[in-house]
Amino acid sequence: MRTEISSLGEFGLIRRLTQGITGKHDSTRTGIGDDAAVLDYGGDKLILVTTDLLLEGIHFDLSYTPLKHIGYKAAVVNLSDIYAMNGYPKQITVSIGISKRFSVEDIEVLYGGLKLACEIYGVDIVGGDTSASLTGLTISITCIGEVDRDKVVYRNGAKKNDVICVSGDLGAAYMGLQLLEREKTVFAGEKDFTPDFGGKEYLLERQLKPEARRDVILMLAEKNIVPTAMIDVSDGLSSELLHLAYESKAGCRIYENKIPIDYQTAAMAEEFNMNLVTAAMNGGEDYELLFTVPLAQHEAVETLNGVHIIGYITEPELGNYLVGRDGGEVELKAQGWNPLKEESQPDSDESGAEPLYI
Amino acid sequence: MRTEISSLGEFGLIRRLTQGITGKHDSTRTGIGDDAAVLDYGGDKLILVTTDLLLEGIHFDLSYTPLKHIGYKAAVVNLSDIYAMNGYPKQITVSIGISKRFSVEDIEVLYGGLKLACEIYGVDIVGGDTSASLTGLTISITCIGEVDRDKVVYRNGAKKNDVICVSGDLGAAYMGLQLLEREKTVFAGEKDFTPDFGGKEYLLERQLKPEARRDVILMLAEKNIVPTAMIDVSDGLSSELLHLAYESKAGCRIYENKIPIDYQTAAMAEEFNMNLVTAAMNGGEDYELLFTVPLAQHEAVETLNGVHIIGYITEPELGNYLVGRDGGEVELKAQGWNPLKEESQPDSDESGAEPLYI
Repeated sequence: MRTEISSLGEFGLIRRLTQGITGKHDSTRTGIGDDAAVLDYGGDKLILVTTDLLLEGIHFDLSYTPLKHIGYKAAVVNLSDIYAMNGYPKQITVSIGISKRFSVEDIEVLYGGLKLACEIYGVDIVGGDTSASLTGLTISITCIGEVDRDKVVYRNGAKKNDVICVSGDLGAAYMGLQLLEREKTVFAGEKDFTPDFGGKEYLLERQLKPEARRDVILMLAEKNIVPTAMIDVSDGLSSELLHLAYESKAGCRIYENKIPIDYQTAAMAEEFNMNLVTAAMNGGEDYELLFTVPLAQHEAVETLNGVHIIGYITEPELGNYLVGRDGGEVELKAQGWNPLKEESQPDSDESGAEPLYI
Repeated sequence: MRTEISSLGEFGLIRRLTQGITGKHDSTRTGIGDDAAVLDYGGDKLILVTTDLLLEGIHFDLSYTPLKHIGYKAAVVNLSDIYAMNGYPKQITVSIGISKRFSVEDIEVLYGGLKLACEIYGVDIVGGDTSASLTGLTISITCIGEVDRDKVVYRNGAKKNDVICVSGDLGAAYMGLQLLEREKTVFAGEKDFTPDFGGKEYLLERQLKPEARRDVILMLAEKNIVPTAMIDVSDGLSSELLHLAYESKAGCRIYENKIPIDYQTAAMAEEFNMNLVTAAMNGGEDYELLFTVPLAQHEAVETLNGVHIIGYITEPELGNYLVGRDGGEVELKAQGWNPLKEESQPDSDESGAEPLYI
């Protein structure tokens, strides 16, 4: 009996592997199924733990990604998961598998990116593991953080009529990836390719040097807003909305004309003849925060800089839909979330790289 | 400027990468440089965090290691690091990178080993990450545990005249690895090799299904013994003694005739024409506990089942020595600790696999 992993996809596999796993310890508040595990070790605050594995060729391509950026991004994607619980990251551990083609200087540059992210976000590197690798570069990071007991936000708390909010803009990191992949193909074989990225710097920055939205968490705290549910946008808005709705036993409606998109993203989609909304909905790697608040806090969140209301929560029977500019409704599908699933390859009109993180 | 990582070795690389890293948070009690980081989140107990990265072809060979054992061992090596702080593991996160040759059933078997270890040691799986991998199987585990505030044991607390103790016996896992590597060579090309391991079961068990010494930690607690320093034996006794002595700013003397060695280990060394003491000192992967207690507790530790006193701590100027059966002294060298360092390949008379864990 051999079941291909591609037939289940990442989330199907995780569901199957973790079936029946329940926390036995008093200190395990919640485990698998959110951005971070929530542990209760008896202090004033709850403890959050999240982890991400980054593999060369899957999550990053060294032909166009500087090692310093890989280090920076490896830290940031973990920090983002802690913020998505309304918490604050405090420590990380860093494990790296290194093949022979890397020098000590290379790894120092990688570590430089990690250290920079830690400095900016106020996080300590407290441990890790270093190993030889027969193949590519492997990076595994675990982040530990904390959150006030009454302020932890899960994915499952969204209620009917809550408004759905997202920070920043979407689809830019995916467009940056498409751009890098195209230039790689164009310049294939040339040793030092220096393509012209003029006017597209934002897309590259979103792809190569994403930031975690600590600022949003600080703004929410300042305004005394505790979201009812929250998740970070790593696999694409569509996928994250489905997670949030599923876990909250709810449905959702979002509006195409409310989805925040940068003009560089739009221009690039035009140039690539891609569907802009598909890119914004399924591109992934945005590391923005998607959250819900009660309708009564509608006006309060509107005052938050860079936060956009894109829709609302419904009863579960109403399903999960994107309402188009013409009023037509399209059911949300999680195209972005399954790089382990073969049939989830991007459509031909958005060929190129898959979303990086899974 | 290109410095080969092999010229520094793992510990040299870690020293270089982590230079100047200090904990900035109040919650960071100690970071890099012990079996686990010690965090203080204000509860009754301190929190311990450790992590290990296991890569196919470096840390395990799937041609003779069942996936279930890989899962079990991956958990156990992390738990061992928590026990080495005199603490108790409570949660783990599990990240796996999976290449296409693995089926869902394969990964379920791997997970079965992880779950079994978690059940036996009372640990919850609380999260992780699952990714496609272009190359082999990658497993990254982080373990979180707790320890009473007045009972945490570091590597750096050994004092002059403390006695040095080690649990269990040493060198068997290394001999098990040699045995498996030999059979793999002998049966190379044959599809189902079923060598005769009669009389060598202990060696295989020590290599393929090691246990973490929770029982030793429980015995120490029962007798109210808090070691002055402790470390687990993953890279070999010699390497761990040097760590412990270096961190404690001390020297050590251990006695060849006190090193606990199982008769199967001795018989196998004879068969392989290997130096038995070298195997016991440098083989690694024993996952025993090496610890020191004040001389006054000498008699108390002697009553602990399976714990052996092998030497004592000296002033640092006296160096680190193994006292032979003839009274001759040999300076300890960390042969086992540097698989990233090329010149640390095992000598020709102990050819075969390198120690697995680094």
